[in-house]
Amino acid sequence: MPYIPLKENLPGITGLLDYRKDTALPIRELTQILLRGPSTLSQGERELIASAVSYGNECAFCTAAHSAAADVLLNDNTIADKVNHEPDKAPVSDKMKALLTIARATQKNGKLVTKDMVDEAKVQGATDMELHDTVLIAALFSLYNRYVDGLASVTPTDPAFYNRLANILKDKGYLPSENRYADL
Amino acid sequence: MPYIPLKENLPGITGLLDYRKDTALPIRELTQILLRGPSTLSQGERELIASAVSYGNECAFCTAAHSAAADVLLNDNTIADKVNHEPDKAPVSDKMKALLTIARATQKNGKLVTKDMVDEAKVQGATDMELHDTVLIAALFSLYNRYVDGLASVTPTDPAFYNRLANILKDKGYLPSENRYADL
Repeated sequence: MPYIPLKENLPGITGLLDYRKDTALPIRELTQILLRGPSTLSQGERELIASAVSYGNECAFCTAAHSAAADVLLNDNTIADKVNHEPDKAPVSDKMKALLTIARATQKNGKLVTKDMVDEAKVQGATDMELHDTVLIAALFSLYNRYVDGLASVTPTDPAFYNRLANILKDKGYLPSENRYADL
Repeated sequence: MPYIPLKENLPGITGLLDYRKDTALPIRELTQILLRGPSTLSQGERELIASAVSYGNECAFCTAAHSAAADVLLNDNTIADKVNHEPDKAPVSDKMKALLTIARATQKNGKLVTKDMVDEAKVQGATDMELHDTVLIAALFSLYNRYVDGLASVTPTDPAFYNRLANILKDKGYLPSENRYADL
């Protein structure tokens, strides 16, 4: 039961972004730039960062949503689960492993990102912009996770819900759109 | 020494917002709406939430900046320090004390916000929008704190720096502006 009145047909973050649309717009715009804008990281790789951070923050809604989005974008319905449960063995590049380590540290506290972590990512080919974006994506999902759980929004339990949401995130991105959640 | 190349004359968050201006814009817009837009919480009260969250995350730059901003807006150069070090005795309303308790819980993890905390805030007169904004401000500064520390931006040690920054935040707000940091 959410702590503030949210529409019942809009669980998780969706009802919160509907509750206050003026604050929702820059949140959506920032997410669109970081997760769907031009980048040397693929959209699926960026969703893996979102999933890993949400998993670290134990935000069930965001973990399920962005794991499903990563899976559908990377065409591998086990990859997010592997990244979160067996990070060393997950089928991602060594550069992504190093960036995910930085994202997980950022999720806990920015101060936990060490020069060694950054040096390892650079050895694996990470650019300054990839380092920047990894930290900012981790910071953004630390915002989302707190927003979703801090107001006790509803977390659907049906995996099919997250598959439908993932396809909306794949097809429509993060910006506001008409009838965005018609198929949710 | 920052992990990515940032301008030396722009410490803390200022260099990061300069490094990638397209992501900076929605972050600035969200902050302007939440901390300077119409609200039944004063600008100073909202800066106190930002300070308390930054203090909880041990982000020295953000704590100093938003403590100074709260102090200057509330015309009391000890209030942020009291809120962070003696929260029960701080000279703020009982409603603000209840909202700060929610903000501190959100800072640690959204799941730590309890119905009892929310009920207490409502007993003290907090509205749904104030509850929403408190959680979202706490979430936003959880983003800022990670962004600032995760990339190891520079933290000035001179208190006068933060007084100058606080006056910029008071007079110009958070949106981009020409020569914004000329007096920094």
